[in-house]
Amino acid sequence: MFSGLSAFPLTPMQHGVVDEVAFIRLIERLADAGVDSIGALGSTGNYAYLTREERARIAQLAEKHAGDIPVIIGISALSTRDVLALAEDAQKAGASAVLLAPMSYQPLSEEEVFGLYETVAHNLSVPLCVYDNPRTTHFEFSDELHGHIAQLPNVGSIKIPGVPAAPDAASVRIERLRTLIPSHITIGISGDPLAAIGMNAGCEAWYSVIGGLFPQTALAITRASQAGDTQQALRLSERLNPLWALFSQHGGSLRVIATAAELQGLAASPCLPLPLQGLDKKGRQNLARVLDELSLT
Amino acid sequence: MFSGLSAFPLTPMQHGVVDEVAFIRLIERLADAGVDSIGALGSTGNYAYLTREERARIAQLAEKHAGDIPVIIGISALSTRDVLALAEDAQKAGASAVLLAPMSYQPLSEEEVFGLYETVAHNLSVPLCVYDNPRTTHFEFSDELHGHIAQLPNVGSIKIPGVPAAPDAASVRIERLRTLIPSHITIGISGDPLAAIGMNAGCEAWYSVIGGLFPQTALAITRASQAGDTQQALRLSERLNPLWALFSQHGGSLRVIATAAELQGLAASPCLPLPLQGLDKKGRQNLARVLDELSLT
Repeated sequence: MFSGLSAFPLTPMQHGVVDEVAFIRLIERLADAGVDSIGALGSTGNYAYLTREERARIAQLAEKHAGDIPVIIGISALSTRDVLALAEDAQKAGASAVLLAPMSYQPLSEEEVFGLYETVAHNLSVPLCVYDNPRTTHFEFSDELHGHIAQLPNVGSIKIPGVPAAPDAASVRIERLRTLIPSHITIGISGDPLAAIGMNAGCEAWYSVIGGLFPQTALAITRASQAGDTQQALRLSERLNPLWALFSQHGGSLRVIATAAELQGLAASPCLPLPLQGLDKKGRQNLARVLDELSLT
Repeated sequence: MFSGLSAFPLTPMQHGVVDEVAFIRLIERLADAGVDSIGALGSTGNYAYLTREERARIAQLAEKHAGDIPVIIGISALSTRDVLALAEDAQKAGASAVLLAPMSYQPLSEEEVFGLYETVAHNLSVPLCVYDNPRTTHFEFSDELHGHIAQLPNVGSIKIPGVPAAPDAASVRIERLRTLIPSHITIGISGDPLAAIGMNAGCEAWYSVIGGLFPQTALAITRASQAGDTQQALRLSERLNPLWALFSQHGGSLRVIATAAELQGLAASPCLPLPLQGLDKKGRQNLARVLDELSLT
């Protein structure tokens, strides 16, 4: 389950509520493309902005429309109490796995983060993916903490925020982490622009933002790397440089991919939960031109 | 309302739910001491870890037990939709004012933060305090953005995260901000160790963590500064240096003040919402010694 292309769809909003029709359409698109797993309610799925009830409903819809494809549900929240409740909801919905980030308001200590994972891991009946994303959680995992958490029951994967851009350095980074975790735990790359480098360096999974909207494009990169054709994986990724440049320009992938969904008619406009805003008029025009040139699918 | 000592109490937990008896005791303690306002559900009140229902209940309890003292209720949340709902709950509970921080998961742009305040300010019937706290929100206000937000209806105060420690530099900083905002808007200092310097430099209010647990101690500093006895305010604050050192050592005031409440018998132990943890055994012993020496009230 925690290998290959894990596609992370948006949770599109419309007039302040979840646009369930649009969400189902995104899930069916991923199922049709044959991604290896679907990660609903990740950062791209805007979990942090939704209520418990909305998240339970999204988990049910993802599970219902994903066919045979395993569904991973994000259960992150600021309080341990809420994480446990969300884990219960996800498991009731039939999730194959859950994804947990150490979301923070008060900066967290290593002991507090370990305590969170310890409590949750012991209360799960499905595998857990550890979600390391300092850009949104403001918590920096040490490799040693990853090693400790990886000893807990039910931990199956670690979603890392990126790797060094130089292939050799990327390999060193993955090998170093690998020495600290049991062999059954996979390492997955996020940060789409670094995905080909990360997979080529030994990451078994790509937890992918563009995979949630353009699954065929992401699958081509994934399958090339999995087949050992590292150069082809890099070429296919470099072809998307104009898109990666927009991610960088707009402070990350979310606002770009949400606007892309709107431009492609896959979500109403605006589809992000306020206060988040999609690209402005000029940004939308640039993105439309890039999407035209790249013919993403 | 937005001047003098605004005391920010904890929201003590017990076995994973709000300890309402302990909360009421804290509010009555503040009312008896005669603080100038009470700020419930600030960062010290752990608003970010509580449900909408719990926050509505806390707002009601604060209002009911505060006597004649104005109550300011924190309404911050990640989504604009939730902030509007919390504002409605706070106003129904009878809050005299509300406090709003640009809480973030995805990093926010200036436009998005302005949009949040614009929407909320136009939907209020009570005054708003702008809560600038980059340590927890990860958003840095520019003074120019403060100036724009200050033009919105209902804005009554800005809670700033600190001032330079040198008195002259503190005055320059306050005067610079003052030139950008209307004269009816007050500036309040938070970051207790800098409170005396901030008030001496012209801040009309102190949004105070220790004021929420030791109101007499905080009132003495406040009244000295208000009376123009800047040296006495500084002396009273410097007397608390051992406490400020513990704030610094434990990554902020929250874990120290929560443990202090436990040590004083004003909250059950542990009283923080998980994953947050109070001080460990050695930290508690050090804090107990400091509290003994300082005789805070």
